[in-house]
Amino acid sequence: MYSIGIDLGGTNIAVGLCDGNHKLIDKISAPTGAGRSPSLIVKDMAALSKKLVERNRLSLSDLSSIGIASPGTVDAENGVIEYSNNISMKNFPIVKEFKKHIDMDNIKVANDANAAALGEAIAGCGKGARGLVMITLGTGVGGGVVIDGKIYTGTVNSAGAELGHTVIVSRGRQCTCGRRGCFEAYSSATALIRMTEEKIEEVKLLGIESSLISEAESEGRVSGRTAFNAAKLGDRYAREIVDGYIYYLADGITNMINIFQPEIVAIGGGVSGEGDNLLVPLRELVDRAQYTRDSKKKAKLVIATLGNDAGIIGAAAL
Amino acid sequence: MYSIGIDLGGTNIAVGLCDGNHKLIDKISAPTGAGRSPSLIVKDMAALSKKLVERNRLSLSDLSSIGIASPGTVDAENGVIEYSNNISMKNFPIVKEFKKHIDMDNIKVANDANAAALGEAIAGCGKGARGLVMITLGTGVGGGVVIDGKIYTGTVNSAGAELGHTVIVSRGRQCTCGRRGCFEAYSSATALIRMTEEKIEEVKLLGIESSLISEAESEGRVSGRTAFNAAKLGDRYAREIVDGYIYYLADGITNMINIFQPEIVAIGGGVSGEGDNLLVPLRELVDRAQYTRDSKKKAKLVIATLGNDAGIIGAAAL
Repeated sequence: MYSIGIDLGGTNIAVGLCDGNHKLIDKISAPTGAGRSPSLIVKDMAALSKKLVERNRLSLSDLSSIGIASPGTVDAENGVIEYSNNISMKNFPIVKEFKKHIDMDNIKVANDANAAALGEAIAGCGKGARGLVMITLGTGVGGGVVIDGKIYTGTVNSAGAELGHTVIVSRGRQCTCGRRGCFEAYSSATALIRMTEEKIEEVKLLGIESSLISEAESEGRVSGRTAFNAAKLGDRYAREIVDGYIYYLADGITNMINIFQPEIVAIGGGVSGEGDNLLVPLRELVDRAQYTRDSKKKAKLVIATLGNDAGIIGAAAL
Repeated sequence: MYSIGIDLGGTNIAVGLCDGNHKLIDKISAPTGAGRSPSLIVKDMAALSKKLVERNRLSLSDLSSIGIASPGTVDAENGVIEYSNNISMKNFPIVKEFKKHIDMDNIKVANDANAAALGEAIAGCGKGARGLVMITLGTGVGGGVVIDGKIYTGTVNSAGAELGHTVIVSRGRQCTCGRRGCFEAYSSATALIRMTEEKIEEVKLLGIESSLISEAESEGRVSGRTAFNAAKLGDRYAREIVDGYIYYLADGITNMINIFQPEIVAIGGGVSGEGDNLLVPLRELVDRAQYTRDSKKKAKLVIATLGNDAGIIGAAAL
């Protein structure tokens, strides 16, 4: 049997077809058109799914399930997107709506970070692990927790595993969630960009030369790569940013290890593209800080391997 | 059938007999003598268990299980206390040792904070809840997580749920675990006492009158109650301490809600004796900060109800 995973993003809808071994065999995508009414978006999701099935010479009866990965707060049990900022859905019964177009029993929805964690756990860097915690360093800091092959999102509701919305700096930077000092406010790509911009302001003000300025100019903007690239060139101001960023990230990740003690902690999202430049110093800090530093059995910190496909593969396996 | 729960503390060994409904029907205790060799301590634990069974006119064959709640890092799967500071045990096979005295199949060991959480989940403030997170405010900040009637302690080892060892103030106060800025370093009774002592130093130095001084004098020492008592008398310096303490506590607790979204968050330990003086302002902060503040289904924040018996009852149910 086959299954379909739909990654509903703020920019694109990506639909993938997976085989029985969670292998992604074909993929199709289209712009989300996030400003449109939710029902039109769902109509497109269903149309893309049908198109993908047809072009693989399959029929809908060859599918065992369809899963949707959505940003925002998802009530997985009732198939409802409670709230999503990026695609302006509020208490939207996405599963019911989807069934108007493709009527199948097994249609599920999950938060995108959770779906990505499941994808990595079953087919990516955590294959074979009983427990995996995934931290996605993108616009925000996404969190996903998989225990014994299942996504954990809480028992009183399914809004848990908001790992990015845990305070690591009490009374610190304002976070989009309303709290101050969240992990996300220090470890997202957005936070890294902000720290880089602030440092560039500072060195410009002081008339100091820094590769931060030239890197930003050659990219045409400040990105999550600017500080990492300038640090590779030996720039001390860039090094300060990168070291500071990694210190906060280590605090947040060590917290998750002390709580969950999973086999795998997977780092995904844009910033994870830095690979060893991120991972090597991060591991050093986490190894030293974790409660079980002297233990033989410890969580393994790795870069996620499925990239943007994690959400699709996880959704297909919901 | 009956079961026995043993709470192995740094000061006392408390042994309880529970009936099939997790009701504690009799209890016995003796000094731990923590400086002694672990095998002598275990011998006493077994002798107390036998005595308790006999004085209730039962025999060992009436027991379905015996559970041990121990401080420190516990390898529950192998029945080993990996490390305990308070009772100087290191990689000590406590279950094997206990079986030398009472040979039964079903003898288990768990960390004391985890056992207490299980006790509250099955017979205390969380009765009937699928998920419960317990935070114990004592010498340290103990953490326990129960999901679907089972203690969660990790998948790569069983040292997880160290909720007190999650950083809430990056680069903050030194914690006993080696990290800086842990929840425990701000929200334990020990931290509260330290904050109170520091404030007393300050007001004395400035020659300011404060009920903090008179309260500490009438108690004969600074305790976790000093600041709460002085705040009740309207002392502004005491109020500052209490408000600051509760703010940090709210940060740590909100973190756990955003991660676990359990039905119940139970507060135990000495400081929880403050009841509504602690709970009312704490709830206000947590309600406002949590990710699901606008949701109908939310975690309920309560004071634990079983007190010192939670560990015994939880151990008996392991």
